[in-house]
Amino acid sequence: MQIQDTLNIPDSPMPRLVIIGGGFAGITLVKEISKKDFQIVMIDRNNYHTFQPLLYQVATGGLEPDSIAYPLRKYVKRFGNLFFRLADVSFIDASKNEIHTSEGLLGFDYLVIATGGRTNFFGNRNLETYTMGMKTVPEALNLRSLILQNLEKAIVTKDPFERQALMNFVIVGGGPTGVELAGALAELKRFVFREEYHDLKMDDMQVFLIEGSGKLLGGMSEKSSHKTENFLKNLGVQVFLNCRINDYDGKKVVIENGSPIPSENVIWAAGIKAAPVDGMEQAVSQFGGRLLTDTYSRIKGYDNCFALGDVALMEGDANYSKGHPQVAPAAIQQAQQLAKNLKRQQQQKPLLAFRYRDKGSMATIGRKKAVVDFAGLNFSGTLAWFVWLFVHLMSIVGFKNRLATLLQWFSNYINFNSALRLIIRPYKRN
Amino acid sequence: MQIQDTLNIPDSPMPRLVIIGGGFAGITLVKEISKKDFQIVMIDRNNYHTFQPLLYQVATGGLEPDSIAYPLRKYVKRFGNLFFRLADVSFIDASKNEIHTSEGLLGFDYLVIATGGRTNFFGNRNLETYTMGMKTVPEALNLRSLILQNLEKAIVTKDPFERQALMNFVIVGGGPTGVELAGALAELKRFVFREEYHDLKMDDMQVFLIEGSGKLLGGMSEKSSHKTENFLKNLGVQVFLNCRINDYDGKKVVIENGSPIPSENVIWAAGIKAAPVDGMEQAVSQFGGRLLTDTYSRIKGYDNCFALGDVALMEGDANYSKGHPQVAPAAIQQAQQLAKNLKRQQQQKPLLAFRYRDKGSMATIGRKKAVVDFAGLNFSGTLAWFVWLFVHLMSIVGFKNRLATLLQWFSNYINFNSALRLIIRPYKRN
Repeated sequence: MQIQDTLNIPDSPMPRLVIIGGGFAGITLVKEISKKDFQIVMIDRNNYHTFQPLLYQVATGGLEPDSIAYPLRKYVKRFGNLFFRLADVSFIDASKNEIHTSEGLLGFDYLVIATGGRTNFFGNRNLETYTMGMKTVPEALNLRSLILQNLEKAIVTKDPFERQALMNFVIVGGGPTGVELAGALAELKRFVFREEYHDLKMDDMQVFLIEGSGKLLGGMSEKSSHKTENFLKNLGVQVFLNCRINDYDGKKVVIENGSPIPSENVIWAAGIKAAPVDGMEQAVSQFGGRLLTDTYSRIKGYDNCFALGDVALMEGDANYSKGHPQVAPAAIQQAQQLAKNLKRQQQQKPLLAFRYRDKGSMATIGRKKAVVDFAGLNFSGTLAWFVWLFVHLMSIVGFKNRLATLLQWFSNYINFNSALRLIIRPYKRN
Repeated sequence: MQIQDTLNIPDSPMPRLVIIGGGFAGITLVKEISKKDFQIVMIDRNNYHTFQPLLYQVATGGLEPDSIAYPLRKYVKRFGNLFFRLADVSFIDASKNEIHTSEGLLGFDYLVIATGGRTNFFGNRNLETYTMGMKTVPEALNLRSLILQNLEKAIVTKDPFERQALMNFVIVGGGPTGVELAGALAELKRFVFREEYHDLKMDDMQVFLIEGSGKLLGGMSEKSSHKTENFLKNLGVQVFLNCRINDYDGKKVVIENGSPIPSENVIWAAGIKAAPVDGMEQAVSQFGGRLLTDTYSRIKGYDNCFALGDVALMEGDANYSKGHPQVAPAAIQQAQQLAKNLKRQQQQKPLLAFRYRDKGSMATIGRKKAVVDFAGLNFSGTLAWFVWLFVHLMSIVGFKNRLATLLQWFSNYINFNSALRLIIRPYKRN
């Protein structure tokens, strides 16, 4: 790579491959790619990888951020020839093989865009302003602070309407994040808040889960979906199906076909859109702004630019004509395939077409309550819960994180009494 | 208590005792006071107690906040008849037995002020603006973010002067916080940063410890102080004694009798002042704004108002004519004594005069490097380090926190490879 850049990456005789994004796709590619064939530069706006499936536990005080976030520089230590740069990418000039970032210019020979997804508010500015997102660690910590702050406010207010709004939790979106959050809040109410807020009538706290379609966990089996609904109802969660949010002003949720719900705690887990970067407009699809790629993850119209994971919309996988689900396994499998294909390209072997292998899915609703769809089987309850626990524990990156997470889970299981109810940074709406 | 208040504390036939501050004094009083004799209300601006002696480990990524912070509402759970309110106290109207807070008015029969200490910049506005404090969890997290952000910046800058400023760490104040922070930074440089920032010349990173007096750890023995200096020098820390900071503009530290040190990382651990509240002016002493009390912790001029810990300056303890040291043991002992005296007062027994029992002190400089002064003995090295570890572990509130801390320390000890190098909230100077 001989392009002049300003990020102090040393010159190298090897072609430079730049990866934008340290999510599941990015870190898998770093691990699997042949480090002899490329100089690898990873760029991310954060210096850590986020294990998003457990963000809801950070929000509800079950885990600290260090259990689910992993410093990207640890890959520098493991692989040596990797260069990490903390930067925001502002523009990709693919015609010049250059990336413009907050810290300066970077040239590339190969580019991999793996910037993931962002919360999709579908253009509703009120929802964006007043609801809480759940895609990043700071968002999860903001939600944690808000929950605790609003309970403290509920204690001192004299206005019963305001108190009810402070104690009503409305979760929009019945996917895994929404379901897991609703279950965790219902358990906090029952097992933790009741004792620590003895001068607050905890029966007044209500958790609502609102889903636009006719079933929870849309991607799962009918049986698991039904079971999930029952688990949640037994925990006291009010589940509204076929229900949409029309508006929210920070105080009152306006829903289709029903009376408004007073609430100062609305969590938006209802949509995802791609987080692409400026300069790739010609490849942007209609579907959530995802970048169109061929079956080798090459972005349409480019030879040396690739897209992986949530940001990509791959064509040519017969069973997934509308693209792969925006979940971690798809991102990981695409990255593994790309690592192989880059090697094959160097060896002038034919490239391999991508086929997504759906290994099933699972969600947890609460203590010993989970649902698992796997290899045609659907099961739920205690066994499913242990399977969920094991799979998630093994998927977390890093021995330290695994050990810390296990300890926290163990401690939470024993006494429902995690120490994480700390309002370290009070949340203030901008 | 019949006074009309707006914080929704129920009426009670018992006299109301209000404690402002959930630090060492506040939580000790809650634990030791007779709960049959008082209705107890604790007010704090945070919903957690901070174990300040380990804040430097949060700043240097050795521990997460949940290891050293403890939710104050857990006392609500333990003691039942305790009321906690998250509020900022703005004014005490002792003539009316009323407290004005951010959340409303609160009446009291007895008042205990235990608001602790704040960083003292001695009126220098530049130091207050540009240096980092180390008294609260958010401050420690800000420092952690700043350290990591500045190393990332050092990698991409082309300006060698700026790079050096980004890699110079100046700690002002050679007390326990300064010493422990200097040692931890020197160890991070040696054992962690060298591998993860392989494209940065880590030898350039310098740690300076600047102390105004002629010795480090002023409260400890000559032997321990000397040993500490040697430990630090062996770790590569540049120790400047009898040296004062004249000014700092965010880029360059101007010191007495020496050339300026370029640095964008200056930590101020050189002074403490009381954090009293408006309304008690008549009792404020000249010494760091501490509130004058008699030997029973009663604030001068009041019968029913008390002050404990860092905010108090007690008269009448023969060996401590300038007040007790502003350390946790003094706060704890005063709170224990006050709990006893409040009981004796109810029983119309004579009150007991306070005598501080100095149980010695200790500090840790790094892995297997610590100094201990105890019962006339001074020792250092591995044994001292284990004593330090044990004493601090046992002093942390809560079994969960102890277990989490032990695990983190164990993991850090094994591989110097804590996962806590996460810039969760980037630090921006206001």
